[in-house]
Amino acid sequence: MSIALNNSRVAHRMGDIQPFYVMDILARARELEAQGKSIVHMEIGEPDFLTPQPIINAGVKAIATGSMFYTPALGLPALRSAIAGFYRDRYNLDLSPSRIIITPGSSGALLLTMGVLLNPGDQVLMADPGYPCNRHFVRFTEGQAVGVPVDASTGYQLTPELIDQHWTPQTVAVMLASPSNPTGTLIPPETLRAIAELVKSRGGKLIVDEIYHGLVYEGEAATALAISDELFVINSFSKYFGMTGWRLGWLVAPDDYEPVIDKLAQNIFLAPSTPAQYAALAAFTPETREILEDRRQQFKARRDYLLPALRELGFDIPVTPQGAFYLYAGCNKFTDDSFTFARDLLENAGVAITPGLDFGSHLPSRHVRFAYTTSLDNLKIGVNRLKQLNLGR
Amino acid sequence: MSIALNNSRVAHRMGDIQPFYVMDILARARELEAQGKSIVHMEIGEPDFLTPQPIINAGVKAIATGSMFYTPALGLPALRSAIAGFYRDRYNLDLSPSRIIITPGSSGALLLTMGVLLNPGDQVLMADPGYPCNRHFVRFTEGQAVGVPVDASTGYQLTPELIDQHWTPQTVAVMLASPSNPTGTLIPPETLRAIAELVKSRGGKLIVDEIYHGLVYEGEAATALAISDELFVINSFSKYFGMTGWRLGWLVAPDDYEPVIDKLAQNIFLAPSTPAQYAALAAFTPETREILEDRRQQFKARRDYLLPALRELGFDIPVTPQGAFYLYAGCNKFTDDSFTFARDLLENAGVAITPGLDFGSHLPSRHVRFAYTTSLDNLKIGVNRLKQLNLGR
Ligand SMILES: Cc1ncc(COP(=O)(O)O)c(C=O)c1O
Ligand SMILES: Cc1ncc(COP(=O)(O)O)c(C=O)c1O
Repeated sequence: MSIALNNSRVAHRMGDIQPFYVMDILARARELEAQGKSIVHMEIGEPDFLTPQPIINAGVKAIATGSMFYTPALGLPALRSAIAGFYRDRYNLDLSPSRIIITPGSSGALLLTMGVLLNPGDQVLMADPGYPCNRHFVRFTEGQAVGVPVDASTGYQLTPELIDQHWTPQTVAVMLASPSNPTGTLIPPETLRAIAELVKSRGGKLIVDEIYHGLVYEGEAATALAISDELFVINSFSKYFGMTGWRLGWLVAPDDYEPVIDKLAQNIFLAPSTPAQYAALAAFTPETREILEDRRQQFKARRDYLLPALRELGFDIPVTPQGAFYLYAGCNKFTDDSFTFARDLLENAGVAITPGLDFGSHLPSRHVRFAYTTSLDNLKIGVNRLKQLNLGR
Repeated sequence: MSIALNNSRVAHRMGDIQPFYVMDILARARELEAQGKSIVHMEIGEPDFLTPQPIINAGVKAIATGSMFYTPALGLPALRSAIAGFYRDRYNLDLSPSRIIITPGSSGALLLTMGVLLNPGDQVLMADPGYPCNRHFVRFTEGQAVGVPVDASTGYQLTPELIDQHWTPQTVAVMLASPSNPTGTLIPPETLRAIAELVKSRGGKLIVDEIYHGLVYEGEAATALAISDELFVINSFSKYFGMTGWRLGWLVAPDDYEPVIDKLAQNIFLAPSTPAQYAALAAFTPETREILEDRRQQFKARRDYLLPALRELGFDIPVTPQGAFYLYAGCNKFTDDSFTFARDLLENAGVAITPGLDFGSHLPSRHVRFAYTTSLDNLKIGVNRLKQLNLGR
């Protein structure tokens, strides 16, 4: 999409920042729905569940009792401590609350991290396909995102070898995501450790996005923080905790970064949302944990249904995704233009999915992403509709 | 404050971004309070009033009925329309809702504006003293903030003459704030018009911060949008609407900027807070307006008390501030080190104020800011305590 601005000033960076292509799909889906058509939404990157009731209750109570003023820029001390407690309970890991920084979504954590680390021209290595905003956070702060093509042979994840191959004198950081969006794959702990050592030996910084932690269906993902104190680890209340619209996330930074991140957060954010922070204080109670565990089981059941069903339809999903709520599927059998393919599925079958274009430049036209953020029943309807299309025949 | 990071990578920009000095004052004030001391808070830049009840009710109702998912990046269409309605009612101005962009606080609006406009090295002119974050938003996006020293002779505001004097080939934008933080002064409409014309004739962009609109005690501030469609106007639900911790603001941009701002907001924010947006839908009702008008009267009464009282104590406040909730006061009679002076007032009188250092580099050590964000009774206690100090004798 090109931006035509007659006689208007637009910063160069904006020429490198792309909109989400899925927005076109979503907008068209809403149009079709407004015309009375039924659409199965498998394009949406947020849980279909409401925020757990205990979290809602805590938020509402806070608002009703006057908690609506600015908090400290790095967040409520009680929430920073509660998150430290979460690392202790879930990962058996002791973290100083001073390392935990509350942010407006993990989006805010990504912006702070890049803002604090990158000088103009600094390179950050990241997997392609990957979460589209990552490269734009880097570009926004005048760094250079270097997408490293990954495929099934490495579980769509970076490896020490790939990092080594792409490292240049301008490289200052490596960004990982486990589980990954769009592929749902994890990085094995040994690989993570080897990457952390390599990046450290090169004098770089390792950034690990763990926002889909908790949504893991085989085993338990270990946090990268268990490996090293020198990492920047990104997390969020959006996905596992079901709080997307509240806009709350966190960053765990090396201890000596607290003052520098504090002054940046003060200036560009002032503070994260107060009602969201009070709500999130209820995210770690046994009651909430039970609700979240039940939802995890539901996501697992959806994956266990959708994965073989798509494979049977002829989609190429060579690696079984262990987490998140995405299936990244090769559509080579059906098309060499995944964007048009996604538009066609929407028009002809009422099934909305995300074209590969949103995740980078490594074979995007041969891939699409299915999100299982809708009920098992809806997924079944969607799959049946795809069956009736006689795809690729 | 210098940031010592042993062996650690920190971007150069962070060397130019200062923390808020008032945070030291605030932290010390909280310490003293924890020791049982009574502190009169005149350092805090947020209203002491709770969010108006109708806004709270709307927020709580939205949460209770499941409105907690991501909204479109530019905000709920209904809220964009409601704000257009607000411009119609209050300013008799017709704006297309497509020009209104909902942001995470006006802080988010400032970040988007600078991000979309500035290339590395581009200069932005702004008044010094001024809101400290403005220069840091510019620095964050690799632009160069040029503080133009202003004094009482121009009501602490930029003028066409000052802009003309400081314009260089690198200048691309001018930033104004009316009413201003820290001075509470307005820009007269004729001056605003002349500035808009000058900036346009130079091919630059004019950015106007109107977040203290509504909090004006003499006459009514006209919006800069009445003068031109080509401005970037920043506003907020924080101050006049009493919603600081909800983190919601807006930007009115020239119409052709919508797609470019949309793709930036998608990538760096995803969306503004959903509960906050639903709450804000109740900000423009007659019921809320009545509450806000009552508060405006209270702020006016506080100003009308505090201004002569401080003058009588020997503070130099040569221009009567027409708006916001700040008095910017020369403390030349008492000190040539306003930071130590502020610390001393806190320790010896239990009165917390903000040192000039937070607002720029033009005579900061000769100025302090008093915020009348506490009750009239508290202000009286504070003034009496200052009287007993026998300041400057
Ligand atoms: C991998 C990844 N990181 C970060 C985010 C940002 O989410 P939020 O800002 O809501 O925490 C997303 C959202 O989809 C994501 O998929
Ligand atoms: C002049 C001015 N602009 C912008 C802001 C940012 O406020 P918010 O992000 O809460 O809208 C402030 C806050 O103090 C301010 O004083």
